[in-house]
Amino acid sequence: MKILIDVMGGDNAPQVPVEAAVKAANELGIHMVLVGDTEVIEKELKKYKYPEENISIAHAPDVISNHEEPAKAVRQKKTASVVVAANMLKNGEGDAMLSMGSTGALLTAGLLIVGRIKGILRPALATTLPTAKGPKLLIDAGANTNCRPANLVQFGVMGDAYMKNLFGIDSPRVGLISNGEEEGKGDELTKKTYPEMQKAPFNFIGNIEGRDIMEGNTDVMVCDGFVGNVVLKTVEGMGSVIGKKVKGIFKKNIITKIGALFVMNGISEFKKAMDYREYGGAPLLGCKKLVLKGHGSSDLKAAFAALKQAKTFIDMDVNKEIEENLKKLNTEEMEDA
Amino acid sequence: MKILIDVMGGDNAPQVPVEAAVKAANELGIHMVLVGDTEVIEKELKKYKYPEENISIAHAPDVISNHEEPAKAVRQKKTASVVVAANMLKNGEGDAMLSMGSTGALLTAGLLIVGRIKGILRPALATTLPTAKGPKLLIDAGANTNCRPANLVQFGVMGDAYMKNLFGIDSPRVGLISNGEEEGKGDELTKKTYPEMQKAPFNFIGNIEGRDIMEGNTDVMVCDGFVGNVVLKTVEGMGSVIGKKVKGIFKKNIITKIGALFVMNGISEFKKAMDYREYGGAPLLGCKKLVLKGHGSSDLKAAFAALKQAKTFIDMDVNKEIEENLKKLNTEEMEDA
Repeated sequence: MKILIDVMGGDNAPQVPVEAAVKAANELGIHMVLVGDTEVIEKELKKYKYPEENISIAHAPDVISNHEEPAKAVRQKKTASVVVAANMLKNGEGDAMLSMGSTGALLTAGLLIVGRIKGILRPALATTLPTAKGPKLLIDAGANTNCRPANLVQFGVMGDAYMKNLFGIDSPRVGLISNGEEEGKGDELTKKTYPEMQKAPFNFIGNIEGRDIMEGNTDVMVCDGFVGNVVLKTVEGMGSVIGKKVKGIFKKNIITKIGALFVMNGISEFKKAMDYREYGGAPLLGCKKLVLKGHGSSDLKAAFAALKQAKTFIDMDVNKEIEENLKKLNTEEMEDA
Repeated sequence: MKILIDVMGGDNAPQVPVEAAVKAANELGIHMVLVGDTEVIEKELKKYKYPEENISIAHAPDVISNHEEPAKAVRQKKTASVVVAANMLKNGEGDAMLSMGSTGALLTAGLLIVGRIKGILRPALATTLPTAKGPKLLIDAGANTNCRPANLVQFGVMGDAYMKNLFGIDSPRVGLISNGEEEGKGDELTKKTYPEMQKAPFNFIGNIEGRDIMEGNTDVMVCDGFVGNVVLKTVEGMGSVIGKKVKGIFKKNIITKIGALFVMNGISEFKKAMDYREYGGAPLLGCKKLVLKGHGSSDLKAAFAALKQAKTFIDMDVNKEIEENLKKLNTEEMEDA
C-alpha cells in the first residue's frame, strides 16, 4: 500500500506531515510518498529513524495557499505539492492522498486530476460530526453548492458505504436534512429528492431536522454543500463559543478554579468526544482513488489518525462498494425527471 | 394600544396566555383581547384581579394543532383562535397579535389574512439567537423555503428596522449567510443577492459563514427560510445536547456535585444568556400589523416578554420604518434581472 502525503500543506507543515508519515511507515507498514520540496523533506527526515524502503520523496517545490483561487492555481501551478500528488495518484503511483492544505485546491485537484468513479456525477466532501452518540457523517460538507436530486442520492450511496466500512455499522441510517420531518417538507431540491431516496439501495429514514443533527440518531446526514458547509461551521463556531464561555466560568476566581478540579475527568472526556483529532480527515468521496482532507491545524495525532483512516479505506475497498451500489441506482432516470 | 392573544395555542394554554395577558393589562396598561373559548377564558380570568376596561374576550371555540396541515386548517376552521385573531387584526380591532400555537397556522394566517405591507414580496420569520455578544437576529428562520434575491434584500430591510428599534442599535450590521466570506462564494441565490445587498439602504457587511453565527458580530443574519430553519434548529439541538452532557458531568457522583456548587453562579449566568424566554417571540416581519410567534413551551416569563416586545414594536412604529426603507429599494429591477 502506498499513500501520498502533501508535506507542504497545513498550519504545521512540513514538520507534522513528515512526522506523521514516518510514524505510519514505522507503525502501519505503509509505503509513504512525501510530496514537497526535496531539500525541506530531507532535512526533516534526518530527525527520525524509519525503514528506508517505506519512505520515498516526490519533488514538488511549489505550494497553493488558502488565499489563491483554487481552480486557477491548480491549472497553473504544475509543480505545487497538491497537484503533483494528484497526478501521481491518477497515474497509479499511490492508493490514496492526504493533504492538510487549501481545501479548495484539494477539491479541484481531486475532481479535475484524480477524476470521478464511473457513474458519479459529483464527488462530495464527507465530514464526521461529534454527536451525542459518537461520530456521524455529514455529506456534502462543502464541495457542491448547487445540487440536483441525483447528486444527493449519490451522496447517500457514498456515505452509506463509508459508514459501513469505516465505522462497522451494518445498515447505516441515512437521513435527508430538511426544514421538517414530514415527507412534504423541504425546499424544491429536497422535496424532489425524497422519493428518489426511498428507492435507493440504503436504509433511508426520511427527513431529519437541524435539531436531530447533534442528537446522533442518523449515521449519514445528506444535504447539498451549501447547507452542509453552513451546518458544519455553525457547529464548529458554537462549540468554540461555548468552550470559551465554560473556560471563563471555571477560570473566574480561586473558588471556581477549585470547582474545576472536581469535574476535571468529566470535562476531559467531553473534550475528547468533541475533538476532531480523534476522527481523521474528511474524504472527498466519489474520486477514483481516496482524496483525503486533513484539518489545516492538524497536529501529529490528527495527521496520523487520517493516515490510519486512509489505510482502512483502502483495506476495505470502499470505492468498490460505492461502484456496486451505484449500479442499483437509476441516475439517468432521475436526471431526466 | 390593543393586543390580541391566542389563548388556545401552546403547551401551557390556556393558563399561561391568560396570566400573561392579565399581567400586561395590569403592568403595561395594554388593552388585551383574549381570543379563545369564552367559557374557558372566563374560568381562568376568575383567578386574577385586573382593570376590567383592559381585558376583553373574543369567542373562538376552535384550535389548530401542530399536526394539521396549516393552509388547509386556516381556510377551513373559521372559528379557530388564530384565524379569529388574524381577522380581527386585519379589521383594525387590534394593533398586534401573539400566538404560541402552531407556527405553520400563524404564518399562513399572517400571510393570507393579515396581509403584507405594500411592496413586501414575502413576510419572513425573524428569530433572535443567543450569541456570544447577546441576542442577534436570524431572518428568515423558516417562513420561505425558496427565495429570490429580492426576498433576501427585503429581509435585510426588515431585520435592520427591527434591530434598530427593538435593540437600539444605530446601524445594524447586516450579513448574508454563505459558505465563504469572499464575494464570489455562495450558491446561485446568494451570489446573485450579494450585489443587490451592496446597493440596499442598510449597513451590509458582506457574507458571513456558519462559524460567525454564534460569535455575534453580525446584528442581522440573512438567509432563506430553509437554511435559517436548519441553522436555528441545529443551534437549539446542539444547545440541548451540550446542556445534557454538562448536567451529566456535574451529576455523576458526590465529588462532581460538590464541584458544581463552586461554579453555580457562572452556570446560572450562562443559562440565562442562552434562555429564549428572555427575548420574547419571533415576529413574522412584513405583515401589515405585527404577527408574533411565541415559543410553544412559553411560560409566564416568556409570554410576558413577548407582549412587552409587541408593545415596543408598536410604540416604535417599526412597520413605518420598513415601509420607508422599502421605497429606497428597486425591487422590480431585481425581479426583472
